Amino acid sequence: MTSPTPKSALVVSAHSADFVWRAGGAIALHVEQGYQVHIVCLSYGERGESAKLWRKGQMTEASVKEQRQEEAQAAADILGASIEYFDLGDYPLRADKQALFKLADVYRRIQPHFVLTHSLADPYNYDHPLAASLTQEARIIAQAEGYRPGENIIGAPPVYCFEPHQPEQCGWKPDVLLDITSVWDKKYAAIQCMAGQEHLWEYYTRVALQRGVQAKRNVGITSQRALVHAEGYQSIFPRVTEVLS
Amino acid sequence: MTSPTPKSALVVSAHSADFVWRAGGAIALHVEQGYQVHIVCLSYGERGESAKLWRKGQMTEASVKEQRQEEAQAAADILGASIEYFDLGDYPLRADKQALFKLADVYRRIQPHFVLTHSLADPYNYDHPLAASLTQEARIIAQAEGYRPGENIIGAPPVYCFEPHQPEQCGWKPDVLLDITSVWDKKYAAIQCMAGQEHLWEYYTRVALQRGVQAKRNVGITSQRALVHAEGYQSIFPRVTEVLS
Amino acid sequence: MTSPTPKSALVVSAHSADFVWRAGGAIALHVEQGYQVHIVCLSYGERGESAKLWRKGQMTEASVKEQRQEEAQAAADILGASIEYFDLGDYPLRADKQALFKLADVYRRIQPHFVLTHSLADPYNYDHPLAASLTQEARIIAQAEGYRPGENIIGAPPVYCFEPHQPEQCGWKPDVLLDITSVWDKKYAAIQCMAGQEHLWEYYTRVALQRGVQAKRNVGITSQRALVHAEGYQSIFPRVTEVLS
Amino acid sequence: MTSPTPKSALVVSAHSADFVWRAGGAIALHVEQGYQVHIVCLSYGERGESAKLWRKGQMTEASVKEQRQEEAQAAADILGASIEYFDLGDYPLRADKQALFKLADVYRRIQPHFVLTHSLADPYNYDHPLAASLTQEARIIAQAEGYRPGENIIGAPPVYCFEPHQPEQCGWKPDVLLDITSVWDKKYAAIQCMAGQEHLWEYYTRVALQRGVQAKRNVGITSQRALVHAEGYQSIFPRVTEVLS
Amino acid sequence: MTSPTPKSALVVSAHSADFVWRAGGAIALHVEQGYQVHIVCLSYGERGESAKLWRKGQMTEASVKEQRQEEAQAAADILGASIEYFDLGDYPLRADKQALFKLADVYRRIQPHFVLTHSLADPYNYDHPLAASLTQEARIIAQAEGYRPGENIIGAPPVYCFEPHQPEQCGWKPDVLLDITSVWDKKYAAIQCMAGQEHLWEYYTRVALQRGVQAKRNVGITSQRALVHAEGYQSIFPRVTEVLS
Amino acid sequence: MTSPTPKSALVVSAHSADFVWRAGGAIALHVEQGYQVHIVCLSYGERGESAKLWRKGQMTEASVKEQRQEEAQAAADILGASIEYFDLGDYPLRADKQALFKLADVYRRIQPHFVLTHSLADPYNYDHPLAASLTQEARIIAQAEGYRPGENIIGAPPVYCFEPHQPEQCGWKPDVLLDITSVWDKKYAAIQCMAGQEHLWEYYTRVALQRGVQAKRNVGITSQRALVHAEGYQSIFPRVTEVLS
Repeated sequence: MTSPTPKSALVVSAHSADFVWRAGGAIALHVEQGYQVHIVCLSYGERGESAKLWRKGQMTEASVKEQRQEEAQAAADILGASIEYFDLGDYPLRADKQALFKLADVYRRIQPHFVLTHSLADPYNYDHPLAASLTQEARIIAQAEGYRPGENIIGAPPVYCFEPHQPEQCGWKPDVLLDITSVWDKKYAAIQCMAGQEHLWEYYTRVALQRGVQAKRNVGITSQRALVHAEGYQSIFPRVTEVLS
Repeated sequence: MTSPTPKSALVVSAHSADFVWRAGGAIALHVEQGYQVHIVCLSYGERGESAKLWRKGQMTEASVKEQRQEEAQAAADILGASIEYFDLGDYPLRADKQALFKLADVYRRIQPHFVLTHSLADPYNYDHPLAASLTQEARIIAQAEGYRPGENIIGAPPVYCFEPHQPEQCGWKPDVLLDITSVWDKKYAAIQCMAGQEHLWEYYTRVALQRGVQAKRNVGITSQRALVHAEGYQSIFPRVTEVLS
Repeated sequence: MTSPTPKSALVVSAHSADFVWRAGGAIALHVEQGYQVHIVCLSYGERGESAKLWRKGQMTEASVKEQRQEEAQAAADILGASIEYFDLGDYPLRADKQALFKLADVYRRIQPHFVLTHSLADPYNYDHPLAASLTQEARIIAQAEGYRPGENIIGAPPVYCFEPHQPEQCGWKPDVLLDITSVWDKKYAAIQCMAGQEHLWEYYTRVALQRGVQAKRNVGITSQRALVHAEGYQSIFPRVTEVLS
Repeated sequence: MTSPTPKSALVVSAHSADFVWRAGGAIALHVEQGYQVHIVCLSYGERGESAKLWRKGQMTEASVKEQRQEEAQAAADILGASIEYFDLGDYPLRADKQALFKLADVYRRIQPHFVLTHSLADPYNYDHPLAASLTQEARIIAQAEGYRPGENIIGAPPVYCFEPHQPEQCGWKPDVLLDITSVWDKKYAAIQCMAGQEHLWEYYTRVALQRGVQAKRNVGITSQRALVHAEGYQSIFPRVTEVLS
Repeated sequence: MTSPTPKSALVVSAHSADFVWRAGGAIALHVEQGYQVHIVCLSYGERGESAKLWRKGQMTEASVKEQRQEEAQAAADILGASIEYFDLGDYPLRADKQALFKLADVYRRIQPHFVLTHSLADPYNYDHPLAASLTQEARIIAQAEGYRPGENIIGAPPVYCFEPHQPEQCGWKPDVLLDITSVWDKKYAAIQCMAGQEHLWEYYTRVALQRGVQAKRNVGITSQRALVHAEGYQSIFPRVTEVLS
Repeated sequence: MTSPTPKSALVVSAHSADFVWRAGGAIALHVEQGYQVHIVCLSYGERGESAKLWRKGQMTEASVKEQRQEEAQAAADILGASIEYFDLGDYPLRADKQALFKLADVYRRIQPHFVLTHSLADPYNYDHPLAASLTQEARIIAQAEGYRPGENIIGAPPVYCFEPHQPEQCGWKPDVLLDITSVWDKKYAAIQCMAGQEHLWEYYTRVALQRGVQAKRNVGITSQRALVHAEGYQSIFPRVTEVLS
């Protein structure tokens, strides 16, 4: 149970802002607990999630990407995570074997204790489930002895799907409510880095408040702590534990 | 988070042996961790789960119940739990408002940190989902300020459904695999109290071994511990936590 | 595998005409194969499925029931099945323990090789799933050694749900398509006994033709037989077999 | 299509405040469109949803009910709906045949063009799905020629389930987003009548805003209207229409 | 709400006859209401749905395609829709990025008020769900400001899945029943253009009659209109509305 | 019903050992009944399922494949089946059109009476559902008159999904329990050929015993046969039959 090296976590984000809205609290919280959290942005969301930038005019795909990278970097810095960009393109995101192996190699390098990614379905956004699928398959590759034989394989880190924009339409059902009250300020600061998507700031503030209220309704014995903000997650695998409560 | 009084758990079993096959490991494990575990047997399973006794001949419902109670008491003693019997009858189990309030009162008295009961569906056994439903509804009653106003209400303890006999046919999907390796001997000793259902001893030993193998396949960073036996549970409510791994 | 006594089947129908529309082909087919088929009508459908009779005027509940019984008897005669009436009332159908035991006793008496009843859900008709639930629970009671100890218990006959009026809305998915081409004439003759529901004659003729076309699309190696009419069934339990094709 | 008499709608609420949080916008909106909207409160929520009142001390079940009725009446007045109370009790709500027929009689009297009620499942609140089930079954009774023969039966009004407190946990998926922007002020005024549940005012304000944002994401050709607040509904039956957009 | 230009609709058909069987009524109905309806046939169904042609002998893929195109054109003419052919091949249908962008461009050009396509799953036909997936993803591309920046993006037109051949096996559940009685003659005339699939003419006539009967069972207040033929659709997105009935 | 040529079956296995653990009993059983059973191994599982071999050191992908082929051949010989290898690679398995047509050609050659393959989903193994999908689509191609016109098309053989490693996590629900008691010795002998995966021998022995116990619980009229070992299967298509029991 004691790990000599710090614990780590991997976050796979289809577009360069997803990790902020959907997992910013989890990232900040675990960084504060000593985890090394690493974010992979599969694309910059340059086509599909940069409407405000495009409307400015005078933009090229290159300049949009650049600005999106700056925003993402600033957010990651606030949250305390490292970040890298695969630049696979978006709308549509596509991943070939090379991208798959590249992500598997990240798994091997990070040896994550848990993984965060998108929901398995989303009729509003086909890049999101593709990112989730890639994340899952890369995890399986990284577990295989016969992939780059001799390297350290990974264990079976739990995978949690973060909240999509319209949860019920995605068949997403949270089975974990993560109390992010203590790091909410950091998450909101990171959210404010997303200058191009200001219309979402209040939306995701309300998401955090609603999940906070719901979390309070699911707490066993009344605790004294002030639970105000939360993030919801759906786990894909059963958790292994030695205690139920 | 610190509780001056010991933590507690409630197990609701439709028939007097269910808690042994399905939750014996969880009971023993948490008793060893200092929990006070209390079992409610809604019936003795005198009609539906005592075939071997009836085949002896010379039995009455009263004598079957008596023998079943002895077996259940012996198993509870081994596991370290307290036990009570509602004697509601089985095949069919039926619960009126009085039984509902009686169970709500147990919740109030126990103030459980978690609850174990049956799966929500079981086409082979209609008493099991009825027990689960009663357990759920009594929990809701016990949370209500207006039920016996002035009494201490309960919080929102998580409810876990234990494994039914034919899991896939019941739509039961485990999202928790509880490592019971350290208490397997106690569970098997409790199982052996069930003299009337000897054909199930090896069946549930194999269940524990299969869930153990599966648990090993779901462990994050490879641990050194010997994980051999496990019990599966399906949670009904999202868990509230401050750490994902 | 050889049974000295004839094989038997049990059909549980919420209202006195359901067995005709939904299972008339299966009944006639198995009667021709030597099965003794017994039908239990839980109600006459006197309130909910006798609109045409009520519109005649001058009717009482008693006279409606009488006419419905005559129609059902005529249909059962054509199909070759025995029939009995529980007269539990409809809209709403309700079943207490006594009705449950009465049906369990029918199971014990019939010792059915298979059972036909309604779908598990139907938002248009609450009597139908209640009939299915009663059929399932009575089967479980009849399997219990401790219910009327000393009597012959039953085995685990498969239960098939017949087609509801709006199948997709009921979550009903057929996994068996029964070729009733050879007995279609009998089924249609039985259908014509239902003088009070003439609007359904052609509806259920088309159902049989559609299921027939679908059955042809699911036949393995092309057979020569003319498959024209079929009935769909959804099985509740896995079938046990020694051959897959 | 032309109706000489005003159109009407029926709302069935398990407890006396549910209709405000969950359907207040729909009620006000249709009243403004000329519908006569009638609300049935099956209980006052005196036990389960009046925690703040009970904590005042000096309360009896009668005095709690009285205060809850006053609040509900005030809210209904603001929304413009008529209201009646079945006083069936809550935690647990139970409905016998008499209550079923009483509600069927309301259907016959109102002849509703649509019906609003609770979701079909809710693990946090067993009264809610029971109310939904009662609403559904009463609708079926009211359609039956043989129930109180000679009375006017009803057609097949669509039934919409309003939003539960934790939607994903209830398997509730909205397929209708109702734009209530124009009546939001009325809804919020009605919400403020619920003095005993002030902690929910802001929660349901945020629900309306989130559903508003989501509605904007589901609008076909961009309209000019300001869509700010919405309510989500899940329909049980297919809608019959002559135009798709 | 008033649109200066005519309303429009887009139909995406995997093979060149699918739009006739599955959406012919919707097309004719909306054309009569003034919509411009445009059909995209992704393939001619030359391999998988032209058995009768191939059995004639002397056919090449080119000649089969030619004949299929003639039939499709004749049907589209009768229904009053424009039509184009992507000629992507069938059995298996495959779509690369180029096909995706081509369809996105059609969306941009048509600016559809609603979209019709196949069901999301079909174990009998893998081309159908692929067509549905392509239709969905192209819609998302066409909404993105960053795809061909400067062009008019589209809104969020509702998408309706039309009826597959064996609906229950495809998990397809209609939530819209479209009354096509007034245009049935046109649909049947279009059906008769499909000389190569005569065995399906009566099948889809019966489908229309069954959906017609079901539609009558789902109509709110009894209307006087003669509802005889209908088409079923499953919507993917919630509809946004200001009135529930 | 009498076939002049022997009946045949096709088994499609993602990796070269899957057919042994998951379908060895079905293969041996049908071979004994006179079926010609043919196995297609899409890959050797050289990367993902050969951990023990890789740990030996000194291995190359070629030498691992060779050893895996020897083991698979030995197992097929014991079971009495023919076997071929597509060598598509694993972790990840990928199949292009050429592989699809190659498998379709096998269907045409074999003309199988039934088909066995993997489950439709498996979060632990992405090669398995891909194999199932390929098997399904190749079956559809092989049914098409326009694919290699003039060749004998196939009928609609039933497809059965065999048991994945963690069945509930894969959404796999068996609806067939195949009694393999009489061929268990052969299956276990074939299992023992898998020298590289010895840790699975006892796991799949227990699987067979559990399914055996479950099968006994689903047998209609008590038979005398000793049912000890079984394999579970989930069917994808409805079966067409002339008798229900």
